[in-house]
Amino acid sequence: MAVYTDISETDLRAFLAQYDVGELTSYKGIAEGVENSNFLLHTTRDPLILTLYEKRVDAGDLPFFLGLMQHLAEKGLSCPLPLPRHDGRLTGELSGRPAALISFLEGMWLRKPEAAHCGQVGRALAELHLAAQDFSIRRPNALSLDGWLDLWAKAGPRADEVQEGLQAEISDELDHLSGHWPKDLPTGVIHADLFQDNVFFLGDRLSGLIDFYFACNDMLAYDVAICLNAWCFQPDGSYNFAKGAALLAGYQSVRPLSANEQAALPILARGSALRFFLTRLYDWQTTPEGALVVKKDPLEYLRKLRFHRAIVSPSEYGLEIAS
Amino acid sequence: MAVYTDISETDLRAFLAQYDVGELTSYKGIAEGVENSNFLLHTTRDPLILTLYEKRVDAGDLPFFLGLMQHLAEKGLSCPLPLPRHDGRLTGELSGRPAALISFLEGMWLRKPEAAHCGQVGRALAELHLAAQDFSIRRPNALSLDGWLDLWAKAGPRADEVQEGLQAEISDELDHLSGHWPKDLPTGVIHADLFQDNVFFLGDRLSGLIDFYFACNDMLAYDVAICLNAWCFQPDGSYNFAKGAALLAGYQSVRPLSANEQAALPILARGSALRFFLTRLYDWQTTPEGALVVKKDPLEYLRKLRFHRAIVSPSEYGLEIAS
Repeated sequence: MAVYTDISETDLRAFLAQYDVGELTSYKGIAEGVENSNFLLHTTRDPLILTLYEKRVDAGDLPFFLGLMQHLAEKGLSCPLPLPRHDGRLTGELSGRPAALISFLEGMWLRKPEAAHCGQVGRALAELHLAAQDFSIRRPNALSLDGWLDLWAKAGPRADEVQEGLQAEISDELDHLSGHWPKDLPTGVIHADLFQDNVFFLGDRLSGLIDFYFACNDMLAYDVAICLNAWCFQPDGSYNFAKGAALLAGYQSVRPLSANEQAALPILARGSALRFFLTRLYDWQTTPEGALVVKKDPLEYLRKLRFHRAIVSPSEYGLEIAS
Repeated sequence: MAVYTDISETDLRAFLAQYDVGELTSYKGIAEGVENSNFLLHTTRDPLILTLYEKRVDAGDLPFFLGLMQHLAEKGLSCPLPLPRHDGRLTGELSGRPAALISFLEGMWLRKPEAAHCGQVGRALAELHLAAQDFSIRRPNALSLDGWLDLWAKAGPRADEVQEGLQAEISDELDHLSGHWPKDLPTGVIHADLFQDNVFFLGDRLSGLIDFYFACNDMLAYDVAICLNAWCFQPDGSYNFAKGAALLAGYQSVRPLSANEQAALPILARGSALRFFLTRLYDWQTTPEGALVVKKDPLEYLRKLRFHRAIVSPSEYGLEIAS
């Protein structure tokens, strides 16, 4: 949860005057998004989301993020649509931050998703991958191997404070991943953060995807591995085979994974678990006491990493392997 | 800002089934309210506020708070209206907390109010006092003299850690207030927390009052003194005479202050400044590191207290004293 920057109604009115959005009747800071400040606006027309981009987001990346959302929406994917100003631009400035006005997507994220929901998430992820194929702007994944090594250089020396033996285990893992990370798999735009709070449902029907602020170019199957980590483990840490099978089948019903992608799933899942372990470890060590964010437990992802390390065949994830 | 308790959509649907409110389409935790968890709900009909009462609110007080809002709304005051369940009750239970569903009040609170706004606040406060006159439930003010002494017993010993000399100064102030606190002024239901974030405006028109969770029975003029502290000081700590004059004139245009009430304003303002100083000091000392609330500076109210101590006549607040 986060509202880092407050805004005055006077500044907000001046900002909104550059858009065609009706009359403002209410705005409330909402407890969503960890990187940015978000407000839910009511107007005499439709509700809107106002996002103020805080310093963790590089303003130079905004054309990629907002352009991608616009591109996906035009392709018929259900996601928030950035509204253009009178001058055509997708961002303005508010309270000293770059800011964008984005359509409000009705729906709720699921606290307790079931296998059928995971199937829809798999399908939506594949649809996203296909819809983004002809998106022209590129953004490298800053949180792949090189990024992990950078994070580890900062967080590693104090890792054993979190759990004895972590330093050696993660160093070994990074060595292994550096030597075996796939190089020739199909790439494209990936969401890279499709956790439960970024997928909305209305009843049992997926109503849209949100929060494209980690999207980047990388291996498409890596995005699938991220979703396995995000959606298919139980609160007790165990892997849920039915959810994994549903997610993978849903994905493959839209975009079948190649034999190479299938074979790479375990190592991609290890890399993905390590990625979230490392950012959580780093945040754990560096978030100041009293900050307005909930620190997430890095050890949840250590347990997932160990699970993936023991996987022999991707069929253990529930993948139906063509004979 | 605060969302202490998350809720699952399944639990929320079960909760909403006890009301007649249309179909849920969205719910977001909002960064408002320090004591409770608040969610803004969209439905196929009207937007709603869902409040989960956290442990700082005594569930035994809810009939007073919610009954008061209902009473005031029936009298035509613009404030949120608690919705009854099918069984007529105003509260249910959600995520293990007492919870209420309340109408959504459009409007925005002013970050930079001007004198004309303060005039409307004064009028609305007086209207509230009159409208609540025949409200039958009573709730003593737990944050009057006795409450201050309790808080001081806990917070006083470490007060000099915040500022040298505080312990002596506040002890003297409490002695003075104990000896001079008014006893025979008109009483009734007071809001007791009518700060800027609890008054909504649409454009320049006051659209309603919210957050009645400190409301109680006490001297009506004490509520006026609270508003002088809350609305009539500049960010630099100076008193704004024009705002004070407008607030008092607005109040008196609806409910003229008696001569005794007028004469008591300076001491009531001292008491009110001390009240907010003490709760802020106590929160400052006891809020755990990492808590999801912004700690408010107690010294802001020390400066206000000193200002009021130097007041000789209530006319210095901008009060027009009848000749």
